[in-house]
Amino acid sequence: MKLATLRNGRPDGHLVVLSADLAHYVSAGRVAPTLQAALDDWESLSPALSELAARLDAGAIAGQPFDPAQALAPLPRAYQWIDGAGYLNHLERVRSLKGSKDAELQSARPLLYQGGSDSLVAPTDPILVPDADLALDFEAEIAVIIGPVPMGATRAQASAAIRLVTVCNDVSLRRLVLDDLQNGFGFFHAKPATSFAPIVATPVSLGPAWRDDRLHLQLRIEVNGTLIGQPDAGADMHFDFADLIVEATRTRSLGAGTIIGGGTVSNRHDESLPIKRDGIGFACIAEARTVEKLKYGRARTPFLKPGDVVRIGAVDAAGKSVFGDIAQRVALP
Amino acid sequence: MKLATLRNGRPDGHLVVLSADLAHYVSAGRVAPTLQAALDDWESLSPALSELAARLDAGAIAGQPFDPAQALAPLPRAYQWIDGAGYLNHLERVRSLKGSKDAELQSARPLLYQGGSDSLVAPTDPILVPDADLALDFEAEIAVIIGPVPMGATRAQASAAIRLVTVCNDVSLRRLVLDDLQNGFGFFHAKPATSFAPIVATPVSLGPAWRDDRLHLQLRIEVNGTLIGQPDAGADMHFDFADLIVEATRTRSLGAGTIIGGGTVSNRHDESLPIKRDGIGFACIAEARTVEKLKYGRARTPFLKPGDVVRIGAVDAAGKSVFGDIAQRVALP
Repeated sequence: MKLATLRNGRPDGHLVVLSADLAHYVSAGRVAPTLQAALDDWESLSPALSELAARLDAGAIAGQPFDPAQALAPLPRAYQWIDGAGYLNHLERVRSLKGSKDAELQSARPLLYQGGSDSLVAPTDPILVPDADLALDFEAEIAVIIGPVPMGATRAQASAAIRLVTVCNDVSLRRLVLDDLQNGFGFFHAKPATSFAPIVATPVSLGPAWRDDRLHLQLRIEVNGTLIGQPDAGADMHFDFADLIVEATRTRSLGAGTIIGGGTVSNRHDESLPIKRDGIGFACIAEARTVEKLKYGRARTPFLKPGDVVRIGAVDAAGKSVFGDIAQRVALP
Repeated sequence: MKLATLRNGRPDGHLVVLSADLAHYVSAGRVAPTLQAALDDWESLSPALSELAARLDAGAIAGQPFDPAQALAPLPRAYQWIDGAGYLNHLERVRSLKGSKDAELQSARPLLYQGGSDSLVAPTDPILVPDADLALDFEAEIAVIIGPVPMGATRAQASAAIRLVTVCNDVSLRRLVLDDLQNGFGFFHAKPATSFAPIVATPVSLGPAWRDDRLHLQLRIEVNGTLIGQPDAGADMHFDFADLIVEATRTRSLGAGTIIGGGTVSNRHDESLPIKRDGIGFACIAEARTVEKLKYGRARTPFLKPGDVVRIGAVDAAGKSVFGDIAQRVALP
């Protein structure tokens, strides 16, 4: 089952169920007006949502044409957004960039940060930055939306709580990262609102692409139409989503509708940009710049500037975008 | 106007309007079923809520007796909880405890951290800790709940966005603070769910106690019935709530229903525990322990343990609790 949230002038939008081919939708309003409402009573409501999807696919409901530009973030605002660091390779590459003195990597426990979740950005809305000079970067990630999880959860509880999967862009202002971290209170100004793909999918609807609590699909990331990366989200993910959820419950329970990010997808390789047709590339600019500094003595890939367009999606073997694309232009307010 | 959220078996509870003497309530359900719903359309809905309060106070509505034990946190889950550090004295005292090497205080810009907001704890529910040995502390704070604020807000916009005021307990696991900060991603495990007083009040309903974007009331904090602190929340607040909101909008807008904490209330003095009748004392145990270490060479006040009861409220000149008390027992799950 695949779901989306459409604009209706209200903060939480309007939940719709999509056809398997993503071409049509039907309103889920009679079952659950919003995605959060569906997540609050998932066991009792999701069968009715699945039935709507089945009737849409069977042609028993005509449905309306689905236009991703009408989609908000699946949860346009959420009660929790926790971003994890599943891919150690990303940490290795960006830590050197940040000039962190603590080079020791946390390979025993995943790092997590608490992100802002009051306004998650629609896939085709602009990335608004207060200033063109803050070293704006994207971070292409897989994210899961979960049901309630108790404090001290087991891996089995964590895995079973994964309701939906999607793609997000953890927008980062690299110039502010060091300030945030040196303040000692963690990320705040360096992490403005995160953007989400238009579509969320249940793990079972993803077939073999969802296994081992990881999404085994390639991302496809372009800046101004140029391919920057196509890493495999299932490869090199040291901490899987069950690990990240378990870690998040060390001292707290997690409410229904909590979104957990897997961290910037990062595969081990020593390519630099531009990437070849079968290259892997990068899911953020900071990593490309780190590799360039090591190889060429200086970073060559610029950070994003107003007017630039970032496109991020996860693609299947046929190259089809599975969750729809995030396609955003950078803009000043 | 004073509002509360009562238990109704649903995650967001049921919004009620209180009489001025806090003795009675009337359901706000016909105006707004939940506090978040009221905040989403505050300009259009708050007059009807005020009218309910006026009719309740005039005796035109009988109302039901208000029992704080039936109250949830005013927002039992929120889209954002940002905790600021308004009182520099608190930072000075606890930084020495944390052994931070960076002694330079941030007196130009307030520190903020992004807290978890998916499950805010009811005023009389237990404080659940996963382990009795994590150096459990309370932090008594003033918090405001705001309307929407744009990126790069002015002080005037920030001040005007303050909708409601209350008291909270930013529960802290001191043993995990250093780990969280050394990880470099900021507070996470050291800051489990925050607890809230049962009542929120509009700034205007607080009369002269709300001025200069600060709450000029004494807190009253007891552990197991012993007075630990009665600091003045209006004194020594270097960054007021408008400052904290402005800082939070440096790179992002803030959604309606965002909760901003003022930081642990902390007055400048060199008393130690036990405090005298007219003493000031402390709004967290960590500060008491810092003063004890300086004075006696070792900390004497223990952190909280299972079975301990913490009571936190803000009191008026007559000693009456203005937002109702947070009164929680520490428990293992």
